[in-house]
Amino acid sequence: MDEVATSLKPPDGVVRGGFRSQVPAIRLRGNGGKPGVVALVGAGPGDPELLTLKALRLIERADAIVHDRLVAPEILALAPPRVLRIDVGKARNRHTLPQGEINAMLVRLARAANRVVRLKGGDPYIFGRGGEEAEALAAHGIPFEVVPGISAANGIAACAGIPLTHRDHAQSCMFVAGHLKDGRMELDWPALARAHQTLVVYMGLLGLPQLCRELVAHGLPGSTAAAVVERGTTPRQRVLVGTVETLPARVRAATLEPPTLIIVGEVVNLRDALACRSAGAEAACIAD
Amino acid sequence: MDEVATSLKPPDGVVRGGFRSQVPAIRLRGNGGKPGVVALVGAGPGDPELLTLKALRLIERADAIVHDRLVAPEILALAPPRVLRIDVGKARNRHTLPQGEINAMLVRLARAANRVVRLKGGDPYIFGRGGEEAEALAAHGIPFEVVPGISAANGIAACAGIPLTHRDHAQSCMFVAGHLKDGRMELDWPALARAHQTLVVYMGLLGLPQLCRELVAHGLPGSTAAAVVERGTTPRQRVLVGTVETLPARVRAATLEPPTLIIVGEVVNLRDALACRSAGAEAACIAD
Repeated sequence: MDEVATSLKPPDGVVRGGFRSQVPAIRLRGNGGKPGVVALVGAGPGDPELLTLKALRLIERADAIVHDRLVAPEILALAPPRVLRIDVGKARNRHTLPQGEINAMLVRLARAANRVVRLKGGDPYIFGRGGEEAEALAAHGIPFEVVPGISAANGIAACAGIPLTHRDHAQSCMFVAGHLKDGRMELDWPALARAHQTLVVYMGLLGLPQLCRELVAHGLPGSTAAAVVERGTTPRQRVLVGTVETLPARVRAATLEPPTLIIVGEVVNLRDALACRSAGAEAACIAD
Repeated sequence: MDEVATSLKPPDGVVRGGFRSQVPAIRLRGNGGKPGVVALVGAGPGDPELLTLKALRLIERADAIVHDRLVAPEILALAPPRVLRIDVGKARNRHTLPQGEINAMLVRLARAANRVVRLKGGDPYIFGRGGEEAEALAAHGIPFEVVPGISAANGIAACAGIPLTHRDHAQSCMFVAGHLKDGRMELDWPALARAHQTLVVYMGLLGLPQLCRELVAHGLPGSTAAAVVERGTTPRQRVLVGTVETLPARVRAATLEPPTLIIVGEVVNLRDALACRSAGAEAACIAD
C-alpha cells in the first residue's frame, strides 16, 4: 500500500462549516480506491484494563482513531505512534464537535484511510450516540462494525461493590440518561419509581435533586438507598451513599463533579459488605 | 511457594452434601497460611475476544478457575495447563451444582489456593448471581474483587445491529430476567410495557408467548418491533425479527434454543440498516 497525501476536504453535501478547521491535512495510507472500514468501539468506563481484547486488536491496527474526551490516555497510548488521533471530546453540555460533524468526519476518514476506530467511552450503543454514527456510515455505504464495551453501569457497579441485580433485592435494572433539557429532567417517572428494581442514571448529577424529588413524588420510599459514584473504576473513584432523601445534600456538600453515575435501589445497601477493602486504584482487592 | 497436597474437604457448617464428590482431591499451591483471593470475573457474552484485558491477566495467573457451562473453551484455554479447572455449569432450569455449593467451593478453594478466578458468562452483577457469591466470600472473610464483563444485552445488541438506546427511539433501556417460576413469568408488567424504552429479557425463550401477551395486555402496541437472538456474538448467531404479535410463532417455527436474548422496542427496526453485511463469525464487517 502506497503512502498517499490526503487533504481530507469535506465531500459536498456531507460536511457543514467548521469541519475543515478541525482536521488538518494529514497523510493516510490509501486503500487502492476502496473505502476503508470503521469500527465503533467501546473503550469501557475508565479503567484501561477494562478494554476488550477485540478493542485492543483494532486499536493496534488502526490508521486513525477518533476519540471522546473521557477515553483514558493509557488506552490511546496502545496505538502505534504513526496512528492519527483526533479528539472530538465531549464536555458536559457541549460537544467539541457537533454530532453531525463527527459523523461526517468518520465517513471522510473511512474514504481516506484503511481502518478507522471510533473510540467511545463505555459502550457505543448505550447512551453513546453510536446508533447515529452507525446510521451515518450505513447511509454512506461505509462498512463498519460495532464492538461493545463495558458500560458505565456495570463497570462502576462492580468496582463500587453494588450488584445491579440480586435475587433478594432487584429483579430488574433500568438505565436512563439524566441530562437536563431546558434545566429539567424529562423522564418516565412512574416507570422509574418501582420497587425491586435498580435504577441507574447516566449524566444525572446536575438533576439529582429533581430526580430524588420526582422518585419520592411517584411513590418510591424516601428511605430507598442511593449512591453517586464519581470517576468510577479510576484511581480517583469516590462513592457517596445515602437515601433518595439525603443524597442531594450530601452530594452538594462533597462538591462532586462529572463524570458520575447514580444508582438507586436496595442493592446499594449491599455495598457495606461487598465493597473492596482497598479504597485505591482499580478497586483492586488483589494486590500483585 | 511449595506445592502442597490439599484434600479440599468441606469445612464444617459451610458445605452441604454432594460437594466432596464434585471436587476431587487436588494439588494447589499453598499460601503460607494466608487465605487466597477470589476474583469474580465476567467472561462476556460468547465471543472470546470480548474478554477484558483484566480478565485475561487474572486467568493467566490463576491457580484455580471455577466456570459456568457457557464460558467459551477458547477463554478457558487462555489459562496455563497447570491451572485447576472446575465446571459448575448451569444448564437451563438446572444448576449442576446448587448455588450454595458453588459459594462454599469458592470459600474452600480460596483457603487452599492463592488465586481463584470465578469465571461467569456475561457480567457477574447482572443476572449472574455474583452478588450472592460475593456475599458468601465477604461473610467468610475471603478477600475478593469483581471484574465486570460485557453483559449479554450490550454484547448481543452490538453484534446484532440493534442500539439499545437512540435519541429518536429509546431514552432508556431495561433489563429483566424472564425465567419461569411455576411455569410463569412474574414481572412488573406496567413498568415493562412503556413507549420509548428498550426492553431486554434474559433467559426468556420459554416464556416468550406469555411475555408478548402481557406486554400487549398492558398497553404496548402489538406492532412494536421485537427480536430474539440465539447464541449472540458467536459464529452460530441467529437473529429472528418480528413484532410482539408475530414473534412467538416465528420463534416456534425456527426452533430456537437457549441461550437467547429477547429485545423489544423501536430500536429493533434499525437492524435492517445497521446489521453487518457479513452474517458470519463475530458479526465481523472488518475482514482481516
